Formats: sequence, structure tokens, C-alpha cells
Amino acid sequence: MPRVLVVGLGLIGGSAALALRSAGARVHGVSRKPSTVKRAIERGVIESGSDRIEHEAAHADIILLAAPVRASISLLSTLGEVAPPGTVITDACSTKREITTAMDDLPAHLRAVGGHPMAGNEQSGLDAADASLFRGSTWVLTETRSTDEHARQMCEALARAAGAEPLWADAAEHDSAVALVSHLPLLTAAALVLTAERIGAPLAWRLAASGFRDSTRLAAGAPDMGADILVTNSKEVRGAAEGFSASLRELLDATEERPEELLRTLARVAERRRSMYGESQ
Amino acid sequence: MPRVLVVGLGLIGGSAALALRSAGARVHGVSRKPSTVKRAIERGVIESGSDRIEHEAAHADIILLAAPVRASISLLSTLGEVAPPGTVITDACSTKREITTAMDDLPAHLRAVGGHPMAGNEQSGLDAADASLFRGSTWVLTETRSTDEHARQMCEALARAAGAEPLWADAAEHDSAVALVSHLPLLTAAALVLTAERIGAPLAWRLAASGFRDSTRLAAGAPDMGADILVTNSKEVRGAAEGFSASLRELLDATEERPEELLRTLARVAERRRSMYGESQ
Repeated sequence: MPRVLVVGLGLIGGSAALALRSAGARVHGVSRKPSTVKRAIERGVIESGSDRIEHEAAHADIILLAAPVRASISLLSTLGEVAPPGTVITDACSTKREITTAMDDLPAHLRAVGGHPMAGNEQSGLDAADASLFRGSTWVLTETRSTDEHARQMCEALARAAGAEPLWADAAEHDSAVALVSHLPLLTAAALVLTAERIGAPLAWRLAASGFRDSTRLAAGAPDMGADILVTNSKEVRGAAEGFSASLRELLDATEERPEELLRTLARVAERRRSMYGESQ
Repeated sequence: MPRVLVVGLGLIGGSAALALRSAGARVHGVSRKPSTVKRAIERGVIESGSDRIEHEAAHADIILLAAPVRASISLLSTLGEVAPPGTVITDACSTKREITTAMDDLPAHLRAVGGHPMAGNEQSGLDAADASLFRGSTWVLTETRSTDEHARQMCEALARAAGAEPLWADAAEHDSAVALVSHLPLLTAAALVLTAERIGAPLAWRLAASGFRDSTRLAAGAPDMGADILVTNSKEVRGAAEGFSASLRELLDATEERPEELLRTLARVAERRRSMYGESQ
């Protein structure tokens, strides 16, 4: 089993570390907070670690960057200096274009592969780490200029060891797809809370039930992760939001002028969603 | 215990019938489909019933209209002709202004109270009925011109027997509040699915994970209920959607131009949502 270095011990990094350890890997960790490193060791999330990536990088076969995406990108230049030849560098960030472009600037002796485990929940931080977070989920992998067969196999094995199924995709296609099904829902969740905050009477909060709770769940995630995701995918997110605004206007117009069309559209949407998730999710 | 007639044996009517029966009430039912009435009797949801409200209304102390709101409104004129003096008429519909206005036209010998149990899920139909659906939830009650002390007490007792806590509110304030926390999230859920359907590549559906699932859950509900809710509250829904569009634009502008502001806003939104639902919902 490879020696894995997980950088960033929040929900995603911590969960990956736990899953990989229970699959038999030797897992070390880096967090910018020494207290998080200490807690991660005490709780068995990692075997050892520190707050200095340059102290840890020398002993890893594969390094998984699981900090917010802009922080992960800025760690790449340090890794370029300290990681030994042949080290495979991958990440767990939610956008792929910016980070894989930055990976293309790594020195020629390193092998990089972009990665995005499609799992998460509204919690954040090491304490929410869960070895089963990735079970049954898709782990997207994207090639970079330095990806070779060894790096491909290492990353596929990493994803599978965490319980996920690897899926190779182009970075741009990935970013466009997640803008629609992940980043746009994050934005709408935040906008729903903002709107209720601004124009809602106290009764509105009192009457908020399971529908509001589910619709806004994504807005409870870690703000730094969310901001990084949106900022590094802003063009695709803007495009998705424009499509969304057109859909919203169409639904509103049908509500006011063409109730039969509204009914047909809602029926089609319900059928589509049921075909994805079944009746009871 | 009163004799209750539940009209409309879908998720809400069926769940209310089950809850009231298990609280000891005698519950009869009406559905426009004879096969639904038959199934409801076989499964113990109601004691007896038929597809003809005029056959059932004579024997009830309280009548709970749980059909979609426009169907419930059109049943009021029949009830005006067939319900005996003193019968309390209430409803379980998601908008309150149109139906309580219509209730004000009932003959003087009837007592009407608007009602809205703030519970539900993405399922629909009698088979999804669940005696515990309303447990711990709020059951909004709104006065009409004919509401007297007896009717107030009957409706409060009905809500409590179903496991909910009654909350008196003005119909217009209710409609404005639920436009924000319930109908707007239904619209955004439907618009998210529509948008992915229109501009999403196959990869988008493949990568849709728990965030998309939660954000679109409301779009899987019964289309006729959803359409009726939006149509009978269209003015408030339009206002809520305008506030939402402004919030969305602001988040997008911050994403592109003021990332620090985006981070602060996302942090405030996350904090607000956690204060409502805790960390792990």
C-alpha cells in the first residue's frame, strides 16, 4: 500500500484519510493549524503529521491536496520544490480547470492528476470526518500534462480504496457539469436564505419547514470552500445562473398566464427527478 | 371525539386521517376516485367513505378539505348546500387567502377556519400517508368571518390530535411568509431541474450528487398540488422571486468582483442556517 499524504484535514481530507487508513494505507497529514494535526493523530485519522508540508512531502508516494482550491493551488509551488521525483500529486477540489492548469507548471519530475470526489455534506471540519463519506460515490479524475500510466493507476486505486468509483473526465467538461448540478444549487441555497433574511417577516422563519431546510442545506457548508469553488468556476457558474434565471422566469410567467403549461412543466420535472432518485429521496 | 370527514385522500389527507384515527376520532373520507376510497378503507385510513361529498357531509362535526386548493375552493359551494348547521369546515391547503375569501361566502349556518399543516415530503398519494407526518410541526389556522369560539377549539383540537401545534396567523401574512420559505423553494427546485435538462451535458446528470438531490427534492412533489399553490399565491410568489433574483445577482457579482464580500456573505448565510437547523440537517 502506498504512503499517502493528505493536505488539509477538514471534512473531505479527514474522511479520505480515515477511509484510506481503514483500507490499509499509511496516511500522514498536514494542516495549517498544529492543533488540528494533534487532534487528527489523537483520533486516529492520520498516523503522523505537522503544519509544514515541506517536512512531510518527502515521505509520500501520493499527495492528496484537500484544502480549499485556491489554497491547494498555492501549495503546488512549494510541492514543486520539496516533493521527490516520481511523487504523484492529486487533489480533491471541486473545480478542476484552474488547479489542473497550475499542475501543468509543476517540474517535470512530478506526476499530477486532478481529482474530485463527488461527495460531501453540509458539515465541515475534522470532527465531521467520516470513513464512509465516499462510499458508492463517483471520484472524478482529470489528466494533466504529466499524467502517466503509473499516476493513473495510483489515483484510481486511491479512489477505490476510499470506496468510490473513479471516472475520467475532461477538466472543462467537469467544471461545466458541476456548475449546473453543484455550484448553481449552492448559489440558489445561499440566495434563498439571503432573501428570507431581507424580506421575510418573523412568521416566515417560524413557518420554514422541511422544504426550506432541504433547499438550503448546501448553504450550511464551509464558507471558504464555497467561495473558492464559485470564484474558480465563475464563468461556468454565471452561464448556469443565466439558464436558471430564464427557467425561473418561464415558470413565473406560466404561473400567472398559463396554469395548464405550469402543471405540465411541473409534472415533467417531477418525473425527471423521480427517474434520477426514485420516489423517496 | 368528533366525527371528521377528510376530503381528498392524498399524502396530506391520508396522513391526517391516519393520525386522527389513532388519536381516537371517527374518520370518514371522500376521494373523487372510488378506487382510492376503497383502498383507504381496506388499509384502515378511514372508517368509511365514498366519492360523493354530498353523501358524507351530513354526518361530520368537522370537515377537513385536503384536495389541491382550487379543487377545495370549488367544493365549498357544494358544502354550502349539503353540510348541516353548525358544521365546522376547515382545510389543509398551502395558500390561505383565496380559500378563506371563498369561505366567507359560505351560508351563515356554517363555521369556517382556514388551516395549513406545515408538513409534507416529496411523496404524494394515499400510499405515502403516514400517521406521524405532522408530529412536532406547526399547523397554521386562520380566522374567517364565521369563525367562532367553538370552531376555534375544534380546529385547535384537530391540529393537536394530528400531533401538530396550532398557530393562529393572518391569511395574508401566512401567504407572504410561505411564498418565501415554501413556494419560492419549490420554484427554484423546479428551475434547477429544468436548467440541467436544457443545458446540461450527460456528464452533469452523472455527477449530480447529494447537493442536487436535496436542492431539488421539492420538485418531486405532486404537480397538481404544486401548480395550485403557485397559481393561488402568484402575486406573493412573484415578489419573493424578485427578491431572490436580486440576491442571486448580488452573489454572482461578488463572485466575479468582490471575493472577500462573497466569503463574508456565505459565512453569514451558513451561520443563519445553522442557527435554524443545527449543524447536521
